[in-house]
Amino acid sequence: MRWKTLAALAAGVMPLATMVLAAAATNKDGGDGELLRQARKWYKPLSAPPLPPANTPRGAQVRLGKMLFHDARLSRSGVISCNSCHNLANYGVDGLPTSLGHGFVPGARNSPTVFNAALHTRQFWDGRARDVEEQALGPILNPKEMAMPASDAVIERIASIPEYVALFKASFPKEKDPVTYHNIGQSIGAFERLLLTPSRFDRFLAGDGRALSVREKRGLKRFLEIGCASCHAGPAMGGMVFQKFKLPNQEGEGDLGRYDFTKDPNDKYVFKAYSLRNITRTYPYFHDGSVWDLGEAVRLMGKIQHQRDMPKPEIADVVAFLGSTTGEIPRHALELPVLPPSRANTPRPSFK
Amino acid sequence: MRWKTLAALAAGVMPLATMVLAAAATNKDGGDGELLRQARKWYKPLSAPPLPPANTPRGAQVRLGKMLFHDARLSRSGVISCNSCHNLANYGVDGLPTSLGHGFVPGARNSPTVFNAALHTRQFWDGRARDVEEQALGPILNPKEMAMPASDAVIERIASIPEYVALFKASFPKEKDPVTYHNIGQSIGAFERLLLTPSRFDRFLAGDGRALSVREKRGLKRFLEIGCASCHAGPAMGGMVFQKFKLPNQEGEGDLGRYDFTKDPNDKYVFKAYSLRNITRTYPYFHDGSVWDLGEAVRLMGKIQHQRDMPKPEIADVVAFLGSTTGEIPRHALELPVLPPSRANTPRPSFK
Repeated sequence: MRWKTLAALAAGVMPLATMVLAAAATNKDGGDGELLRQARKWYKPLSAPPLPPANTPRGAQVRLGKMLFHDARLSRSGVISCNSCHNLANYGVDGLPTSLGHGFVPGARNSPTVFNAALHTRQFWDGRARDVEEQALGPILNPKEMAMPASDAVIERIASIPEYVALFKASFPKEKDPVTYHNIGQSIGAFERLLLTPSRFDRFLAGDGRALSVREKRGLKRFLEIGCASCHAGPAMGGMVFQKFKLPNQEGEGDLGRYDFTKDPNDKYVFKAYSLRNITRTYPYFHDGSVWDLGEAVRLMGKIQHQRDMPKPEIADVVAFLGSTTGEIPRHALELPVLPPSRANTPRPSFK
Repeated sequence: MRWKTLAALAAGVMPLATMVLAAAATNKDGGDGELLRQARKWYKPLSAPPLPPANTPRGAQVRLGKMLFHDARLSRSGVISCNSCHNLANYGVDGLPTSLGHGFVPGARNSPTVFNAALHTRQFWDGRARDVEEQALGPILNPKEMAMPASDAVIERIASIPEYVALFKASFPKEKDPVTYHNIGQSIGAFERLLLTPSRFDRFLAGDGRALSVREKRGLKRFLEIGCASCHAGPAMGGMVFQKFKLPNQEGEGDLGRYDFTKDPNDKYVFKAYSLRNITRTYPYFHDGSVWDLGEAVRLMGKIQHQRDMPKPEIADVVAFLGSTTGEIPRHALELPVLPPSRANTPRPSFK
């Protein structure tokens, strides 16, 4: 197990004092005291970050990032946008085992949700990107995804659109030539950092004992006792830890995971633990998207990671608890931007 | 030229009395009187239709229709939704000559904008659908578009999702079994009927002489004198009339247009006149999407339809006028719905 510093936990988290006060006010230990204490060893309540003021560079970055997130002109075909695989109307996923990229070719790994992803310590299943800003730039140039031939070609498209140029200037006012590939990532990342989804579980963590049902509390108790939280830890309930995970009945060598990136033999079959927030909505499960049923995914995790045959009622309780992490999609994430028009010199899409 | 009754013009149009009063109040003929009179021979100001109350069946239909419009589960692959080709963030088009369908195969004709389409007398370039309700059901089953094998397969997916079933019941309360393919079209149509985009040109038509610039007025004057309005007529400035239109330098027989549908030899190379509203945003132009520049499209129309070599300044004036028809996308159209989750028995997507 590898840990990042707890400082990473701080992002988007309610201050401890507020949390304790809230607990004192609403809970008074009414039976949940011990469960709450155990849960708080691992989790703190998540709160939605405020939108930066629109007239600030950060506000402009967020606006620009949202437009770029929805703009299929970042792909060779003009058909695939970030939102194609990380659909904001669908809890940040496309509901496919692996996404379809350029040429209708399926990708190698399941597209993870973009909600709460900014809270992960590293990005991609194998952790090859440091943060959402770096991650956002990967798929654009991946020949099996958005398939742009080079970052210069991306800039040529974007820089041909005056509205985009103006927004880059407003977003990066100190830079002489702000329309850069790097800044595309910075902008998309600025938008993605606001895609957090507080849920009923956060209300429970803040001390509202009524936020979870009896069954959900029973599920949480089992979840903690089994040790799920040791990997599905941190503000996103995952995304902090890399773990060996090999599904049974894989053909041949299978997906070597983080090893492909680090070339460290210890990293064979090592993947980032998935964020459990909104997990009822981010099917199908695992890096290959091979499991559609959440109960089956829980059963497999119990079996493979904890050598435990979970009885069916236990699985059902844990699944019920996981449902309490399904949060509200922030309203601004559901508001589509109007995309600026191409110009005569905007390089055209290509299906080839 | 074939006309539908003027009754069709009534949809989404400000009552004449209101219009005349508005004109009297703000215009007093300040130079625009004759131009306004000429323009009003063809056009009336468009106004945005109100959203039906959410607690009515019609309100439920609109909500359901918007969800279905964005739901890629209406396609075989689970990747293509109505919005893929009629992108609401992009003035209802995908900006491609022809859209990519199942298997990354390009379609035969350009995807027209969904904005103001409900005002057309018939749907599709060849008019083969009566209205938006009927149109919406075509692409879902088209093997080159969303490629569902049969309407039953569509219903099997949708009926497996309890949130959809509840919305169909609320939308069609008198029907015993409301989850039907027909009602999918009715719902998407109910949503699309609200996708109207009033513009500066409508303010001009209502009597606000300052709504258009001098150049735009000059363009409008030429536009009317040349006779463009005889085909680009009605509330959508198009979509009412079928006309022979054959682009030069086409290979072989080319696209036979409405003939494919009617089998009437007089309908060879006959297409529906495109709606000019938002035309600066709905490039590339014509049924084959072969022309990217609006000035070039105007030049070709002058040449082919009016045997007229339009001088460059005249083309520029007409293009300027057309820009005044670019309207505001209604706010509700830019608000994404949250899609309901699939269930264990929801038939899975297939890339084959």
